[in-house]
Amino acid sequence: MNKLELTETIFAIKKEKQLSWQAIADGIDMSIVWTTSACLGMNSFPKEQAEKLMEFLGLPEESLPVLMEYPTKEWDKSVPQDPLVYRLYEVVGVYGDTLKEVIQEKFGDGIMSAIDFEMDVQKEENPKGDRVILTLNGKFLPYKSW
Amino acid sequence: MNKLELTETIFAIKKEKQLSWQAIADGIDMSIVWTTSACLGMNSFPKEQAEKLMEFLGLPEESLPVLMEYPTKEWDKSVPQDPLVYRLYEVVGVYGDTLKEVIQEKFGDGIMSAIDFEMDVQKEENPKGDRVILTLNGKFLPYKSW
Amino acid sequence: MNKLELTETIFAIKKEKQLSWQAIADGIDMSIVWTTSACLGMNSFPKEQAEKLMEFLGLPEESLPVLMEYPTKEWDKSVPQDPLVYRLYEVVGVYGDTLKEVIQEKFGDGIMSAIDFEMDVQKEENPKGDRVILTLNGKFLPYKSW
Amino acid sequence: MNKLELTETIFAIKKEKQLSWQAIADGIDMSIVWTTSACLGMNSFPKEQAEKLMEFLGLPEESLPVLMEYPTKEWDKSVPQDPLVYRLYEVVGVYGDTLKEVIQEKFGDGIMSAIDFEMDVQKEENPKGDRVILTLNGKFLPYKSW
Amino acid sequence: MNKLELTETIFAIKKEKQLSWQAIADGIDMSIVWTTSACLGMNSFPKEQAEKLMEFLGLPEESLPVLMEYPTKEWDKSVPQDPLVYRLYEVVGVYGDTLKEVIQEKFGDGIMSAIDFEMDVQKEENPKGDRVILTLNGKFLPYKSW
Amino acid sequence: MNKLELTETIFAIKKEKQLSWQAIADGIDMSIVWTTSACLGMNSFPKEQAEKLMEFLGLPEESLPVLMEYPTKEWDKSVPQDPLVYRLYEVVGVYGDTLKEVIQEKFGDGIMSAIDFEMDVQKEENPKGDRVILTLNGKFLPYKSW
Amino acid sequence: MNKLELTETIFAIKKEKQLSWQAIADGIDMSIVWTTSACLGMNSFPKEQAEKLMEFLGLPEESLPVLMEYPTKEWDKSVPQDPLVYRLYEVVGVYGDTLKEVIQEKFGDGIMSAIDFEMDVQKEENPKGDRVILTLNGKFLPYKSW
Amino acid sequence: MNKLELTETIFAIKKEKQLSWQAIADGIDMSIVWTTSACLGMNSFPKEQAEKLMEFLGLPEESLPVLMEYPTKEWDKSVPQDPLVYRLYEVVGVYGDTLKEVIQEKFGDGIMSAIDFEMDVQKEENPKGDRVILTLNGKFLPYKSW
Amino acid sequence: MNKLELTETIFAIKKEKQLSWQAIADGIDMSIVWTTSACLGMNSFPKEQAEKLMEFLGLPEESLPVLMEYPTKEWDKSVPQDPLVYRLYEVVGVYGDTLKEVIQEKFGDGIMSAIDFEMDVQKEENPKGDRVILTLNGKFLPYKSW
Amino acid sequence: MNKLELTETIFAIKKEKQLSWQAIADGIDMSIVWTTSACLGMNSFPKEQAEKLMEFLGLPEESLPVLMEYPTKEWDKSVPQDPLVYRLYEVVGVYGDTLKEVIQEKFGDGIMSAIDFEMDVQKEENPKGDRVILTLNGKFLPYKSW
Repeated sequence: MNKLELTETIFAIKKEKQLSWQAIADGIDMSIVWTTSACLGMNSFPKEQAEKLMEFLGLPEESLPVLMEYPTKEWDKSVPQDPLVYRLYEVVGVYGDTLKEVIQEKFGDGIMSAIDFEMDVQKEENPKGDRVILTLNGKFLPYKSW
Repeated sequence: MNKLELTETIFAIKKEKQLSWQAIADGIDMSIVWTTSACLGMNSFPKEQAEKLMEFLGLPEESLPVLMEYPTKEWDKSVPQDPLVYRLYEVVGVYGDTLKEVIQEKFGDGIMSAIDFEMDVQKEENPKGDRVILTLNGKFLPYKSW
Repeated sequence: MNKLELTETIFAIKKEKQLSWQAIADGIDMSIVWTTSACLGMNSFPKEQAEKLMEFLGLPEESLPVLMEYPTKEWDKSVPQDPLVYRLYEVVGVYGDTLKEVIQEKFGDGIMSAIDFEMDVQKEENPKGDRVILTLNGKFLPYKSW
Repeated sequence: MNKLELTETIFAIKKEKQLSWQAIADGIDMSIVWTTSACLGMNSFPKEQAEKLMEFLGLPEESLPVLMEYPTKEWDKSVPQDPLVYRLYEVVGVYGDTLKEVIQEKFGDGIMSAIDFEMDVQKEENPKGDRVILTLNGKFLPYKSW
Repeated sequence: MNKLELTETIFAIKKEKQLSWQAIADGIDMSIVWTTSACLGMNSFPKEQAEKLMEFLGLPEESLPVLMEYPTKEWDKSVPQDPLVYRLYEVVGVYGDTLKEVIQEKFGDGIMSAIDFEMDVQKEENPKGDRVILTLNGKFLPYKSW
Repeated sequence: MNKLELTETIFAIKKEKQLSWQAIADGIDMSIVWTTSACLGMNSFPKEQAEKLMEFLGLPEESLPVLMEYPTKEWDKSVPQDPLVYRLYEVVGVYGDTLKEVIQEKFGDGIMSAIDFEMDVQKEENPKGDRVILTLNGKFLPYKSW
Repeated sequence: MNKLELTETIFAIKKEKQLSWQAIADGIDMSIVWTTSACLGMNSFPKEQAEKLMEFLGLPEESLPVLMEYPTKEWDKSVPQDPLVYRLYEVVGVYGDTLKEVIQEKFGDGIMSAIDFEMDVQKEENPKGDRVILTLNGKFLPYKSW
Repeated sequence: MNKLELTETIFAIKKEKQLSWQAIADGIDMSIVWTTSACLGMNSFPKEQAEKLMEFLGLPEESLPVLMEYPTKEWDKSVPQDPLVYRLYEVVGVYGDTLKEVIQEKFGDGIMSAIDFEMDVQKEENPKGDRVILTLNGKFLPYKSW
Repeated sequence: MNKLELTETIFAIKKEKQLSWQAIADGIDMSIVWTTSACLGMNSFPKEQAEKLMEFLGLPEESLPVLMEYPTKEWDKSVPQDPLVYRLYEVVGVYGDTLKEVIQEKFGDGIMSAIDFEMDVQKEENPKGDRVILTLNGKFLPYKSW
Repeated sequence: MNKLELTETIFAIKKEKQLSWQAIADGIDMSIVWTTSACLGMNSFPKEQAEKLMEFLGLPEESLPVLMEYPTKEWDKSVPQDPLVYRLYEVVGVYGDTLKEVIQEKFGDGIMSAIDFEMDVQKEENPKGDRVILTLNGKFLPYKSW
């Protein structure tokens, strides 16, 4: 069993039990974004969360090392095509230089970490159309000189 | 005078007057992210903001139509290389499918607009290292059937 | 069963019963373009249309969640090669800047949505050779400043 | 003087005289889409339209052969990035196979010509947000066997 | 059975019966180039030719709709590698602009159709080495203005 | 003076004297296709043809070594975009494998040379629309074993 | 059985019988480079060599037409990655223009054929480290004018 | 003065004095291939050869450090297009795996160096057409384990 | 059995016996980096190390020739995506020209070999966060002139 | 004055004063690798180092803000071509997965930072050929869950 097969197993159980990602995240006391990404095989589960997930979903015993395995994080299309994902890529393209100007004005020369990092999605109800509120929270890492 | 030349003019004045993007944004009563992106030529100024900016920075008269011109939004590298911008691209690559799962679970089939959209950057002080808080706020657009 | 397998099933039934896409679209009271795209797995069926389609074609029970699943919209070739599809790509290449000029002259700074969007194909008979009339109808989304 | 320089001249006159593309098109009795594309250097002017345009805009004498020159139609980005143009590319990606199915069901094996071709843009006012109506009209060309 | 499987079947029969493409083409009263391309799945057979081919080769009954199916014409390598095919690509690269000059000088602004099109290969015996005579014959399509 | 500058000079003289490529080719007793390609800098002139061309067009003395220089044959776009040139590329894509089958059936294992090669363009008048007749004539080169 | 499967069969027999490529080449009285390339499926065997190889290796009867089949010569990576092959690619990149200058100075305008071509590998013993001597021998093909 | 400008100077002198690369190579007692590559800026001259070249060609004093500068070896097209250079690339593509098999059979696991490397071009007269003899001579570098 | 299958076998045994790469390396008296790379199929085992590994892990007899086989060293993504590997690629991009300046200042014109090469990873404990110490050790190869 | 122009100025002074990078680094009490990268415009100078460099090299007053500017770190070729830089890229390709295995075995799931990072080059004299010792030293960043 590898990460890909385990992801398919999780999808099957989720569909069968009609669980939402929110329910699964609540079941293991973690956030929805992180839980989903780890179930999709893009993050490794710490032992405690892996065991909770196995119990919550009824996963087989051999899932434990697979859940805890450190993933190889790769994606298929250098330029994404699905409209939802492409819009995020477009934001990076259109606003990338702007964010570099603004972040470095506020913090100095450095970057926002994508490793010491978390993310959240909220729904803001709005009569003109609901809004997606996506929050990225990453540690600022200053460049060093030596 | 075109957008590129105007951007260079703005950079020169900004350096000479030692202004921050925050100060320029405050000077025209807009947010720092939008103001910076418009000064970089990636958004068009409404007439009122264009006139405020011209006054605030002392831009020449012929800047008005250039500031108001609708930009062609393009970027140089399909896969960005500057580390600050690449980390954002990496987030889209690693978490793209996760965000699709989570947003569509919360909102139904559709996307987050990159047009009816705004963004904010905040600095969160933290003894272990300050954190960048980046917030994307876009209207949810449901797919339609016909 | 996934979207791809369901599409193959639909093709098989369509060939066996010698149905046209028009007939299938009529059978579920939707347009031919949308119906075809949804059968090809590029749009999700609302519950009502999914049930109509299952009855009309005699699809197995487990098709329902698959028809309703939100698709990942991706395509194989960044630059399409089949001559029919390439001609459309060529139109975008040759007339892209023109359409930007004309749409933004008529509507202001913004875009035509590809989400709140519909499309139609008509045949215009013509003694010099029939003509394809392809109509795209998308909501105009103005850029916002903040 | 080449096509690129002439396009820049036309843009300058258009800005100075505050003309719209619609006004220029009306001034030479042609459609707005074709007129704009020819002014952008993507179509050649027949002699009559070239002379009308020269008179209407007050272009210099040497413009005539340049307007009438057969253009090399090329574009910069294989995958367009400006959001307005990208959305059109996305439509081709998402609906390309669908259009192949529908057009070939209605017309037989062949393609829609991008040469014997015209296009129109209309604005449909709508309280929920105006809509862009884009119409492509191309001759159907059947494949031949020999 | 799909086009690919049918092509493999045809190759197997051709090898077994030791038939040349010329013999197959003669057997259905069509040219060798078109017949080969259709057998390779790059053109659709009209009903009459499909039935002749089925009889000539002894293809199974279910081949008929597959032979008549409208193909998706795609190729694997954007820049071909097999030396025979690359040389043709090289000719397009080296002589493309030349052919644009010459064809448009003789015909006006427009293109040679690749749809209303046929092609032939002849062998010219020559003591210094035989020569391949490849003839392309396509309808000239003038650009239209509107 | 390099090949590119000389090509521009030739274009200017051609426009000023209102010469066709055919007239230039006749003026130096060579074919139109080869003459055009050599004037575009894609072939080197033998001394005799170079001198004839210089006399016919009135080119300056320093043109001689430039006309005779061996060109570097390169092109800008791996996949061409101008519709006239793209159609030729499409023919190579759609019919490349077919031509390999047919040529190798007629000649054995080998290729058609693009070096010991010539090409011709003819116009065939036709009431349904004139036709472009493009003929490639290349030496067959058999693969050798050793 | 296709070329790929036959190559795998040859590798298996070679490993089992502990044969070197040199031994196989000697067994069919051909050079080691050509023999290896033909066994890898990149060249077709003439009938005589095919029969010798079948006897020498004990290949099954159905190998004959496969060995004699004209191969499609394609490779996987446009820019090779294996260090041995990359070094050859690097030589072409670094010395390509040099070889063009030198060959065309010695021979006139034309190319070295890769079809009427042979190649050899020798080992030169050397106390500072043995050296690979790789010799390419191709017919010079002059460009023609017409 | 940089390497590119120096190369242009050398070309100009070479043309003016009607020197061949062979003559220049003889003038500095080096091989023609290495001399040409160094004049094209793809190798650095040792001091002695630099001084000989400056004297032989009459180069200005400031050429010395430029000739001795260590070059950045880069090329424009990942896949070369000029037919002479492409044929070499094709040889690497078609025979790359073959050379890996043969070299590693003769030498063990390792590569042929492209650094401790030299190359030669000879002309072999032949009544059927002269032949280019291209010899690569590189040190074998065995992989090490540790 | 090929290298890929053997790598999977080694991973399975490693997981079952809960061995670290360090333990495997110690078991065959080689370094951890080289041992891991050879187990991943990117280096060939000398006979002695192959036999030690087979004994240490209990690999089947037929593993011997596979372990000793010379690998084809290729990788999937030209630009790597997994964050750990991408950071190394980024270092090459950001510091590539710097390393060229520094190495060639210290050693003269030439390169660091990636063949006569070894590498080590150490962990440096640090209260502010442990540090990865990665050491590359390659023979300097001077360019030669001839 | 921008970073690129300043780099050219530094190169000119370095050549004129015949300074090595080591001498410049010593002059500002920083390491050779960091100093070179900052002079090449790939790192920003802290104020103190900028002032020391200006004094040491005699740079003009306006250099100060340019030296301190935060650079955009980009590189020209996704796959580098200069042999010295390519070998580093090759090491990342060949050993990338190995380093992921080894680093994550020693440190847990995470990466080596390329931001909180330093690098050193040493020369190891060796009778068989000197060796380049390249040391990368980066903070380990563990992935977080949330």
